[in-house]
Amino acid sequence: MKLNCDLGESFGSWQMGLDSDVMPHIDMANIACGFHAGDADVMAKTLQLAKQHSVIVGAHPSYPDLQGFGRRSMALSHSEIVNCLHYQIAALDGMAQSAGLSLSYVKPHGALYNDMMGKPAVFDAVLDAVARYYKPLKLMILATAEQQQYRDLAAAKGVTLLFEAFADRRYTDDGKLTPRSQPGAVLHADEMLTQVAQLVKHGTVTTATGKQLPLNADTLCVHGDNQAAIAQVQQIRALLK
Amino acid sequence: MKLNCDLGESFGSWQMGLDSDVMPHIDMANIACGFHAGDADVMAKTLQLAKQHSVIVGAHPSYPDLQGFGRRSMALSHSEIVNCLHYQIAALDGMAQSAGLSLSYVKPHGALYNDMMGKPAVFDAVLDAVARYYKPLKLMILATAEQQQYRDLAAAKGVTLLFEAFADRRYTDDGKLTPRSQPGAVLHADEMLTQVAQLVKHGTVTTATGKQLPLNADTLCVHGDNQAAIAQVQQIRALLK
Amino acid sequence: MKLNCDLGESFGSWQMGLDSDVMPHIDMANIACGFHAGDADVMAKTLQLAKQHSVIVGAHPSYPDLQGFGRRSMALSHSEIVNCLHYQIAALDGMAQSAGLSLSYVKPHGALYNDMMGKPAVFDAVLDAVARYYKPLKLMILATAEQQQYRDLAAAKGVTLLFEAFADRRYTDDGKLTPRSQPGAVLHADEMLTQVAQLVKHGTVTTATGKQLPLNADTLCVHGDNQAAIAQVQQIRALLK
Amino acid sequence: MKLNCDLGESFGSWQMGLDSDVMPHIDMANIACGFHAGDADVMAKTLQLAKQHSVIVGAHPSYPDLQGFGRRSMALSHSEIVNCLHYQIAALDGMAQSAGLSLSYVKPHGALYNDMMGKPAVFDAVLDAVARYYKPLKLMILATAEQQQYRDLAAAKGVTLLFEAFADRRYTDDGKLTPRSQPGAVLHADEMLTQVAQLVKHGTVTTATGKQLPLNADTLCVHGDNQAAIAQVQQIRALLK
Repeated sequence: MKLNCDLGESFGSWQMGLDSDVMPHIDMANIACGFHAGDADVMAKTLQLAKQHSVIVGAHPSYPDLQGFGRRSMALSHSEIVNCLHYQIAALDGMAQSAGLSLSYVKPHGALYNDMMGKPAVFDAVLDAVARYYKPLKLMILATAEQQQYRDLAAAKGVTLLFEAFADRRYTDDGKLTPRSQPGAVLHADEMLTQVAQLVKHGTVTTATGKQLPLNADTLCVHGDNQAAIAQVQQIRALLK
Repeated sequence: MKLNCDLGESFGSWQMGLDSDVMPHIDMANIACGFHAGDADVMAKTLQLAKQHSVIVGAHPSYPDLQGFGRRSMALSHSEIVNCLHYQIAALDGMAQSAGLSLSYVKPHGALYNDMMGKPAVFDAVLDAVARYYKPLKLMILATAEQQQYRDLAAAKGVTLLFEAFADRRYTDDGKLTPRSQPGAVLHADEMLTQVAQLVKHGTVTTATGKQLPLNADTLCVHGDNQAAIAQVQQIRALLK
Repeated sequence: MKLNCDLGESFGSWQMGLDSDVMPHIDMANIACGFHAGDADVMAKTLQLAKQHSVIVGAHPSYPDLQGFGRRSMALSHSEIVNCLHYQIAALDGMAQSAGLSLSYVKPHGALYNDMMGKPAVFDAVLDAVARYYKPLKLMILATAEQQQYRDLAAAKGVTLLFEAFADRRYTDDGKLTPRSQPGAVLHADEMLTQVAQLVKHGTVTTATGKQLPLNADTLCVHGDNQAAIAQVQQIRALLK
Repeated sequence: MKLNCDLGESFGSWQMGLDSDVMPHIDMANIACGFHAGDADVMAKTLQLAKQHSVIVGAHPSYPDLQGFGRRSMALSHSEIVNCLHYQIAALDGMAQSAGLSLSYVKPHGALYNDMMGKPAVFDAVLDAVARYYKPLKLMILATAEQQQYRDLAAAKGVTLLFEAFADRRYTDDGKLTPRSQPGAVLHADEMLTQVAQLVKHGTVTTATGKQLPLNADTLCVHGDNQAAIAQVQQIRALLK
């Protein structure tokens, strides 16, 4: 069970996230590619940090919306999604190789991630982007109750999926994340560790209504926003050992 | 003597240049990378056009200034130049490979090109960007009277240069382009063909004062802005044959 | 019956529209404010042109999407719409006053215009933006079969509406524009003049199914994209006289 | 002696500066206008905060360089500077009026501020921007030994200047700020209070070589970046009382 984290989300003079604090504790860094966060300087710095800690690097591309941090859905066409993903993935890919690293996967960001999970046409465009990229990259998506269905769609285009689960989010019965607007959506530290332990041992989560839901996750999404988040990552890391 | 042309300089809904008219007549396409012109959609389309006509593709990166079309000098630091070039080159490189093409060279655009030729620190940063990129790319610069000096600097970092001459611009005695603000800076069609013929046969140009200046050019820069420019490219192509 | 036209949609080095050709023939200029097109230089130039021809000026604000020309819907919140409209309207307003002109109205652009007509929450946000602006501005929207309903909503916030009809578009029975994807959506020159004459004389349009639909329009939207469009504007102008 | 502070320099999801902590202690808020920092949402929020504390508001416009935070000099033409300042000033002006506030002055930001003080052509363009704006605004510049010269240039265009001094920076003998790269450029807390007291009582500063330099400042520039800076502002405020 690998730990992945969104990183490289500073921009220009603006800092975001404690990247150098969280990098030593994670396995996979989802690096912003300049469309919702990150810029060429931030990307170069983040790649060096990943290299220093031997962390696997992935592209974290987004809709082109810097002011909205990629969190506002945009009505892009199929080819616009493919091209805007290729641009971002390629920018990070070439910079990673120039830093002696090899890009390994793609995890869409924010509204693009949500649209990918919620709208079949967007998932299809994202799949095409990954499938048509010149080198094989894996695509990281949300582990839900319909994993096999996503796996079949991806396999048809020759794409391997990575499924991520959320350590600190309460799941609904249909395997989605309880919206943050609802009470109990975000787990306390204890509950989070219990959920992680259950996921690793039994491959299940206990949903908001108390059901045991099977969830096969390849990786857990953790956060490096502040010191409390870093402490949680360290607890999860300790538990996994 | 190869013909190179700046291409892919449309942006979003705005068209610029008759790319599909000029592409059949050139050897090398300098493709904009999104910072002064071009966007992911334009880049994808331009790469397809280059592929169709078996044209060699190069990156045409710029200062980050879309409104100013990269024509306004910006005071970027050494590492900012390196990173912003890596980002742009990489974006085009990965998209080119995904289109079945291989990126071959880099030609900086506009104010970055001028600063590269006029400020040693900028040339050094551009050289570093090309030298540290993960794969060997050539760097296209202006053929001047100091070619050997540039060649030595590039060789010290392991970079191969391509020298370009301008078919339609009058040269000064020190091998620079007569500024467009001065009379006679831009050659008429006849003078242009004469200059090209002289360059190819004798490796010289006749400067504004009538001197014979040696100029070893690997490639000629031509334009595809309008039908008159396309006609000139065809005349040069005929002459070269 | 006033003629309004979208103008000032060049950006940086990219030209769009024959602004100086169409300006003499229109009454109201909808000027882009920099978010989908236009920049400070284009805006200053467009305002001078409007002044020269005594044309009424309005703001033509958009979602923040330069690459997509404001044609891609974006999920902005209520306050994000209000603030992003205020910013754009204010930018043009102060520049207009500095040019000796007075801003008169607001006509949202592209996807924002469509969302305003299709989604009550967006219309409400646009209304709030206009209502809370420090000076009274009119809001231009599409003349449909539900004009009174829109008028009531606007009146409740103290906003006066301007209704625009399209000279060259075939209407559906429910007073919407036939989508461009359908045959007959765009009228030929003759049909266009017939539609304009009918609108002016009888206050109706003949819909795609042949029904007579009442439509009270304050203004007609015309285009200045190319010489054919300019010729149409001149024909409409002649007919109105 | 009024205290002025750069504010509203967050952008999108990125926070910068402790605006709500420093606002109660200052007299004049220099509000970013979206080109180096700030966006429509940040501007609206900052204006509300200024209103709440009855702080005078000024525009803090910049070169168009979000990634570089407006700190990189850009070669804009005279009219480009005028238009890009008008756009930014107007955007804030209309938003300020919509918040019930009245814009009072303009203080250029970063590289534009430095270029204004170092290059006569840039100062002339900034002056023209302020002079041609539709309403009278003051222009805030650095108090140097050549104040009268600047005052004359401004008076010739009908612009009133505001001179600012820096509480925490060591001055050179010719009335410039010692570059931050040099030792002793930034004053310790004690030295800063001594410098402020001397400025207020005697209208002089003690330069790096020990000279007494006359400096007539209308306002002191203070900072709200962190808690230490806020504490300094409070000490200066106490001293001024």
